[in-house]
Parts: sequence; structure tokens; C-alpha cells
Amino acid sequence: MSTPNEGLSRWERREERLIAHTRILDLDGVKYYHPVRQVEREFVVIRTSDWVNVVAVTKQAELVLVRQFRFGTNDFSLEIPGGIIEAGEDPVVSGLRELREETGYGAAAGRLLAKVHPNPAIQSNWVHFVLVEAVERSHALEWDHDEEIEVEVRPVEEVFALVRSGAITHSLTVAALMHFEGYWRSRPKG
Amino acid sequence: MSTPNEGLSRWERREERLIAHTRILDLDGVKYYHPVRQVEREFVVIRTSDWVNVVAVTKQAELVLVRQFRFGTNDFSLEIPGGIIEAGEDPVVSGLRELREETGYGAAAGRLLAKVHPNPAIQSNWVHFVLVEAVERSHALEWDHDEEIEVEVRPVEEVFALVRSGAITHSLTVAALMHFEGYWRSRPKG
Repeated sequence: MSTPNEGLSRWERREERLIAHTRILDLDGVKYYHPVRQVEREFVVIRTSDWVNVVAVTKQAELVLVRQFRFGTNDFSLEIPGGIIEAGEDPVVSGLRELREETGYGAAAGRLLAKVHPNPAIQSNWVHFVLVEAVERSHALEWDHDEEIEVEVRPVEEVFALVRSGAITHSLTVAALMHFEGYWRSRPKG
Repeated sequence: MSTPNEGLSRWERREERLIAHTRILDLDGVKYYHPVRQVEREFVVIRTSDWVNVVAVTKQAELVLVRQFRFGTNDFSLEIPGGIIEAGEDPVVSGLRELREETGYGAAAGRLLAKVHPNPAIQSNWVHFVLVEAVERSHALEWDHDEEIEVEVRPVEEVFALVRSGAITHSLTVAALMHFEGYWRSRPKG
């Protein structure tokens, strides 16, 4: 939890109601009470699983990217691999699984690079960023139903440039690369 | 639009239905048809306004941050200022307005730094990142109903460190700072 100064009030969460249930998320109406203003208001919260995104680096200093059709934007999108963390699953295990299934790339181990909230205003979940180094193509692809993915392997520096030129637009991929760039620029050079 | 290789099919968007309407977003069910597989499937899409976030830099190389209670995570969050772009409003105008209302800081002009999709998988909207330099505290605060905001002004380098230490968790703030860091590190030094 972050630490506010004295001037900010913590709203008290009260009851919530289900507005809509779908395959991938629930839309809830959550009542909050402000202890100083003494008002109660309902806010919309999207409930969904935690997610994982994977920064997968080859020994040749490349990143493994995926291009796929996205239904929210009705367009193709170039991203790092990722998906949903199953209930109780370790984020690193999820990340290695999604990487393998979507791209055929793998490695013996990964580690948690960072985690962020996709949108604290309206979503409760986290997205975990998993770093996997020295990945190699080792598996057949196992796309989920409705997935159709093109794998692109690009030099790390080119990927940073793709973000800054606007060719990569997925905010969670951009946020993962912010964390990764700090690590990458400060790593010991071999 | 991004450019796929030949191997990827563009799903065709068909009819959509409203699943739920709320004050800040609509939840839609959108039917898509895959021209090769010849299947039709419904996907959930969140429809909401475009958003704006503001990277506001003082003459002393500081960034203007806001800390506020967020209802999605039921916790406080440290972020860059931002809000909703009104229909037909220029993103830079929105950004200057949100900056002024939330923090009391302003400047004569801003410019678009970048734009990203908050989540191409399930949302159709953009968030625009507006860069405003040489900001000064000049206005009284005008918080929206339900807003209660603490303004924090921190050195730019410290804000990058706050991201990488995990103290800033809002993915859109992190994505904005990825774009800003590229600009900041490559700017002519005075």
C-alpha cells in the first residue's frame, strides 16, 4: 500500500453488486463511503484475473515479440507475449507457459521483473512482468482457441525504438519495457 | 494500423450488443467473424472515452505528480495527472485543463508526446500523453466531485527511480514515463 499524507481520506469499501458477468471479466458496482464528507457513492470496478507479460531475451540481445489481431481495437498489435495467470499459479510459471505456447521459445527459468496495476481507477488486478533470458526456440506452438500469432524477434534497441516511434501501442508492453530498459542499461556488460 | 504478414487473418467485425451501460464505460459484446476458419465468436469490449495523461516538468527538472485514492485497487496511487478527454476536445487542451484543475500547475502550451492503447485486447480507446514544460503553480485547484488529490513535485530522476522501485504502479503513468525518458535523455543539455 502506498502512504498518503494526512490530508487524504481513505474511502471505506462497502457492499458491491454484480452489474455484468462475462467470460473474461466481471463488472461490479462497488459502494464506497467517505468518512469525512460522509457520503456514499457507487463506482464501477472491473474484476478479472491477474495477468502476465513476458520480456524474453535471446542470447543475441533480441526480444521475442508477437503480432496478433486484437478485438478491443479491431486491429493488429505488436506486443510482448502474455496472458492470464491461472488461479494459484506462480506468475513466473505462467509467464514461461505463455511464452512457450505463444512463441515456442523457452528457457529453464525466469524471474519477476516488476508488477503494475493495469488501471487502479477501474481495475483491481495486477499484471506481472516476467523476465526470461537466454531464451531459445524449443517447442511447437500451442495457440489457445481464437489465437493466431506471428512471432517476431527484434534487437532490443530496435524494440525500444519501436515503442518511441509509436509502432508498439499496447500500454502494458510499453510499461514492461520501461522496467526492462532500466535493467538492460544498468546490466554488467560482458 | 499495424501491418501483419500474410499469415494473419483480420477478423471481420459484425454486430455488437450492449451488455451493460455505466456512468464511465459501456460493456459491449462484439461479434467477429474469422474469414478463413469461418467461425463467428463474441468478444467483450469496453467502450469509454479517450483519456489523457500529462507529463508536467518544472524549470527545476521536476515532475508534477498526484496521489489519490483509487477505487479499482481500493488503495492510494501515485501517478501523473490525467483524466477524460471530452468529446471533440483536443488532447493537449484536455491535458492542460486536467493539469490545472488537479494540481494548479500550468503553462502556456503543451504538445503530444505519444499515444498508446490502454488495452487493445478489451478496450477500444487511446490514452494520449501530453508533455508540458516549464510549468508553474498558477491556479487554484478545481477538483472534480469525488476527487481529493495530493500534489507532489519530485526531481525527474527520482520519478524514474520510483517507477523502477515499484512505488509507482499505474501502468499508464509508467508507459508515459517510458516515452518521456527517451525524450528526456536525448534532449540538448542547456
